[in-house]
Amino acid sequence: MDTQLGTTMRASVLRGTGDLVVEDRPVPEPGPHQVLVRVASVGVCGSDVHYYEHGRIGSYVVEQPLVLGHEASGVVVAVGSAVTRRHLGQRVSIEPGEPDLACPQCLAGRYNLCEAMSFHATPPVDGSFAEVVAVHELFAHPVPDSVSDDAAALLEPLSVAVWACRKAGVTAGSRVLVTGAGPVGLLVVQVARAQGAADVVVTDVNPDRLAVAGELGATATVRAPADALPDGFAPDVLVECSGHGPALLAALPALAPAARVVLVGMGGSDVALPLSLVQERELVLTGVFRYADTWPTAIALAASGQVELDRLVTGRYGLDQVAEALSAARTDPGTIKPVVRPGPA
Amino acid sequence: MDTQLGTTMRASVLRGTGDLVVEDRPVPEPGPHQVLVRVASVGVCGSDVHYYEHGRIGSYVVEQPLVLGHEASGVVVAVGSAVTRRHLGQRVSIEPGEPDLACPQCLAGRYNLCEAMSFHATPPVDGSFAEVVAVHELFAHPVPDSVSDDAAALLEPLSVAVWACRKAGVTAGSRVLVTGAGPVGLLVVQVARAQGAADVVVTDVNPDRLAVAGELGATATVRAPADALPDGFAPDVLVECSGHGPALLAALPALAPAARVVLVGMGGSDVALPLSLVQERELVLTGVFRYADTWPTAIALAASGQVELDRLVTGRYGLDQVAEALSAARTDPGTIKPVVRPGPA
Amino acid sequence: MDTQLGTTMRASVLRGTGDLVVEDRPVPEPGPHQVLVRVASVGVCGSDVHYYEHGRIGSYVVEQPLVLGHEASGVVVAVGSAVTRRHLGQRVSIEPGEPDLACPQCLAGRYNLCEAMSFHATPPVDGSFAEVVAVHELFAHPVPDSVSDDAAALLEPLSVAVWACRKAGVTAGSRVLVTGAGPVGLLVVQVARAQGAADVVVTDVNPDRLAVAGELGATATVRAPADALPDGFAPDVLVECSGHGPALLAALPALAPAARVVLVGMGGSDVALPLSLVQERELVLTGVFRYADTWPTAIALAASGQVELDRLVTGRYGLDQVAEALSAARTDPGTIKPVVRPGPA
Amino acid sequence: MDTQLGTTMRASVLRGTGDLVVEDRPVPEPGPHQVLVRVASVGVCGSDVHYYEHGRIGSYVVEQPLVLGHEASGVVVAVGSAVTRRHLGQRVSIEPGEPDLACPQCLAGRYNLCEAMSFHATPPVDGSFAEVVAVHELFAHPVPDSVSDDAAALLEPLSVAVWACRKAGVTAGSRVLVTGAGPVGLLVVQVARAQGAADVVVTDVNPDRLAVAGELGATATVRAPADALPDGFAPDVLVECSGHGPALLAALPALAPAARVVLVGMGGSDVALPLSLVQERELVLTGVFRYADTWPTAIALAASGQVELDRLVTGRYGLDQVAEALSAARTDPGTIKPVVRPGPA
Repeated sequence: MDTQLGTTMRASVLRGTGDLVVEDRPVPEPGPHQVLVRVASVGVCGSDVHYYEHGRIGSYVVEQPLVLGHEASGVVVAVGSAVTRRHLGQRVSIEPGEPDLACPQCLAGRYNLCEAMSFHATPPVDGSFAEVVAVHELFAHPVPDSVSDDAAALLEPLSVAVWACRKAGVTAGSRVLVTGAGPVGLLVVQVARAQGAADVVVTDVNPDRLAVAGELGATATVRAPADALPDGFAPDVLVECSGHGPALLAALPALAPAARVVLVGMGGSDVALPLSLVQERELVLTGVFRYADTWPTAIALAASGQVELDRLVTGRYGLDQVAEALSAARTDPGTIKPVVRPGPA
Repeated sequence: MDTQLGTTMRASVLRGTGDLVVEDRPVPEPGPHQVLVRVASVGVCGSDVHYYEHGRIGSYVVEQPLVLGHEASGVVVAVGSAVTRRHLGQRVSIEPGEPDLACPQCLAGRYNLCEAMSFHATPPVDGSFAEVVAVHELFAHPVPDSVSDDAAALLEPLSVAVWACRKAGVTAGSRVLVTGAGPVGLLVVQVARAQGAADVVVTDVNPDRLAVAGELGATATVRAPADALPDGFAPDVLVECSGHGPALLAALPALAPAARVVLVGMGGSDVALPLSLVQERELVLTGVFRYADTWPTAIALAASGQVELDRLVTGRYGLDQVAEALSAARTDPGTIKPVVRPGPA
Repeated sequence: MDTQLGTTMRASVLRGTGDLVVEDRPVPEPGPHQVLVRVASVGVCGSDVHYYEHGRIGSYVVEQPLVLGHEASGVVVAVGSAVTRRHLGQRVSIEPGEPDLACPQCLAGRYNLCEAMSFHATPPVDGSFAEVVAVHELFAHPVPDSVSDDAAALLEPLSVAVWACRKAGVTAGSRVLVTGAGPVGLLVVQVARAQGAADVVVTDVNPDRLAVAGELGATATVRAPADALPDGFAPDVLVECSGHGPALLAALPALAPAARVVLVGMGGSDVALPLSLVQERELVLTGVFRYADTWPTAIALAASGQVELDRLVTGRYGLDQVAEALSAARTDPGTIKPVVRPGPA
Repeated sequence: MDTQLGTTMRASVLRGTGDLVVEDRPVPEPGPHQVLVRVASVGVCGSDVHYYEHGRIGSYVVEQPLVLGHEASGVVVAVGSAVTRRHLGQRVSIEPGEPDLACPQCLAGRYNLCEAMSFHATPPVDGSFAEVVAVHELFAHPVPDSVSDDAAALLEPLSVAVWACRKAGVTAGSRVLVTGAGPVGLLVVQVARAQGAADVVVTDVNPDRLAVAGELGATATVRAPADALPDGFAPDVLVECSGHGPALLAALPALAPAARVVLVGMGGSDVALPLSLVQERELVLTGVFRYADTWPTAIALAASGQVELDRLVTGRYGLDQVAEALSAARTDPGTIKPVVRPGPA
């Protein structure tokens, strides 16, 4: 047990739409299989912003005070009685979902689709905009020193990108189109390149983001919706990261026969898809829902430098500045990934 | 060369919308790699009906006289100079598409997506409502005596069902939902059962067709759109065979996580798909476009009796009765598959 | 709690090579997530026979008294404090391995390769030649009434066959060679047929077993090693169930290009494989180690009658007759699967 | 037609074991679908050396004069009457096998397993140690200027590496063991890295080759057979490139559960494989036989610099020096890939 761990800790709590306060809360007791992690860095995700601004995402409604944040890293400062795989002092990246490992989906090897998933910062489960969080030891993944605290936090969105590229089957020679150059799109660009893609073309409305995409390995960038894809470019993979239906619809006709489409961006529901195109070209379309067993790969990519995570960080905020962190994207178009650092300044 | 093969033959020719005549045409000369097949039986497909009634399907327009029919069987009555794999007298089932076997899609092992496919009864390529057709030897598949002439013709729609079930990964224990109990739906039911599916539930608006589905192995049938799926039935495979958008939309919410959806029925384009459902359950959706390398499997299924084809035949028509055959489904709700038999009555 | 459940129970205990006694033992206390199962039927596996006759299998050595038996069915007679998925009175089939669901293999969706597997009747874990066994609720699978007690026990070897056919990709049109017509071979025959295989050819030295294979769906049987495979038969799947190296070596040259080979039978190690053949034909060779997530499929196959399990039972024995059951195969060539029924006669 | 193309050309002809002469031969007439390629560069393969030294490889025997060489590049100098996809002056890399595109293997999408393959420098088909060769237009792949003549030749062994890594499923996070650092091993290292492998460990007896492996991206190199693999390294992919049975046997016990093994090196036949290990870990073992549809990927990897080909060239030889080129590996341990340049010095 960390001797400096007191009995209370500070947490940023969402009490209602747009209403965040920092509260003192008891430091959690770790369950038998849990570790306590002193949080070092937490990435701000679009879902955090959405809960903050709207109080809900679809059927998930904030009905009681909620701690946001689910892209976190930190240091193990206490371990539960039955913990065998982690020890005090380990730097870890937190996988924020805890499946039951017992439902039919888990037993079938798809724990991301667990019927009883408990997921950080998804009502009513608290997240990690707090000084300390408790997490099952399995989901506190040790990271090497070559991965910074911020990068360890961003292994969560990197996991989304890894999962998307895995489902898309990106490999040597792939011709990949990424619609949307937000944080996940920029990570998909990097993972696709790391897996050997020959072409990675990125579209976005925001030229600043396209510039970053170029820095991070995109082979071409396209200003949407005005500009056209490169002449003759027939992607065999589309990773949709904008959550914008028209972006998906604009991309489909460009796809090569048998291309794979992976939907990552949220929000493009009830899109009038040209199913005849799906049929004539035998396109394969699927979506990603979180990830399963991606941390080992994400850690390898980050530790080796194949993927650059620190470059995405565009602002650092304390626990008292969470509202500011959640508003950064709205106020500054250059924002990619703000991080909250709950520790002392 | 068949000594009874004259210099002219009769063919049913579509001259315009609803305008069919039987013409005398020269017997074709087989190309070096072609065989001539004296046609025994030809199934009527919905696409034939559509060309007859509308003169077009999407961008395919009947702009010159066209012979319809692409589900055909017969006997080899002549062989081209370079033919090595077939011989006179063989009973064959005709695979009606001839890919170039040289384009990138063919070289990638996907000849059904050939960039230069020549397909029977698709403008401007003539089909097989005729006494004799010429076909590349590779695509005239010998059939054993246990497969009747009609059944040999229906290996073509059976191939669609085989391809759909292959893409759907139907296997022992699969829980399959088939929307639409037309000819292909009824074949999907049988192939799914043959591949070991535990449940095969079929929906249709037509109770006659549902009754046939039950005879052919469906484990439950559901009258659409009024009736509900069996309680607790969570399919891991959906094969959409109705071409009716609302049928697809009604089925999606029932699907199990990670279910696969294969679109077979045509006509459900621009359907407002709930993409969030695709994402949350990681559904995998694709379509089938014809088939590749399915005849060996289709022949095995038909020859062994695992799939019953003759049961689908609901009427036999001569070359002079093609218009009647094309109208059968419209005039008699008990119609499943009319066949045209171009030979002497 | 079953009111008839006393404090002691009878168990057949292997004390040393060839030394079996029936002992009174305390009825186990179920752990929080465990159920107690009053055992109805237990199949005898070759591994039970091997431990009985040799005291070891490879590195697994019987060093303390051991209860054999790992193919078991029964009725839930008590449930642990945290059990939520099972209830008293359920008839269940027992999956005899309990993975930790937490190691890298489990998290990767391969719980059969769990690094910390606890498996019944594998030293030092007791099995089910006993009146009562405790098992994690997840691995006590409810079965419908259409599955007999014996059949429920034999879902375990059926799971091996399901797993083997899954890895082999058996589907409609497959041409399957099964070497060895012991219990698992006979189940592979049935599963392969259920999944649509066109040909299932079986080889064995024992004509009695070949006769049973024919009854259960083999399309041809071949007396090994004297007789040849059917002329022209080029299997695209080989499931090796004999554990006899020469059987594997004899089969390989017959295989079609790109055929898949699944090793099920144990004992054929250090076989001088013609690797050039593996290379020239791009054969894919793998083995099965138990199974993962197969019970739902096995239950479906047994409940529907697609697979016939009761036919395999060739003798029923009480707890006092376990030695006799373990010797049946040696004394009677007609033996396929003896079962032990621990309850009162 | 290239105006400088005369009626005769020079070719290096193997007349018997160790007996090479340069002959004048007629310039071939291109068939309708063939192009003539003026050869720029030809890599020396181990199989060329083997034919030169032994007059045979397995059942392939040199029974008449044979031109060796099957890793070739050049320029199109004439086109057949039906050529539509290539034109005069194109720089091309030659895929040396011509499948019939019509046999069951080809139609199943596996043209590398074609039952009627015609392959350069495999008796009785001549290869490309000659000034001009004729090749089907489909298999003369245009290359961009960023790929040198030597590199264009070496797209052939690169294709082997691409095919091997494709079968091995190398992707981000893979832990790859490569046994053998010959030309193909060194290419596998690079392709594995390009596809995102986290670790690529290479073993060889030759320290010079290991040094090159390190330059080209191996994360660790191991001197075989003396030295051990890095502590804790449990590969999930093994690509065996040495053709040396003991190398395979030494590697197997290190493999992680569910690892994939791809046999590339020839010569390790009849190896006493520990099948129990294959079973217990569910290893998947296969071999590669040439390649199918790999040139697009290989070109992309070479053109982008993801794979370095020119670095492998360790000597350039004229047509008069083919014997010297074929002996280079024997005489100089620093030899990796000699190339023959048939043109004027």
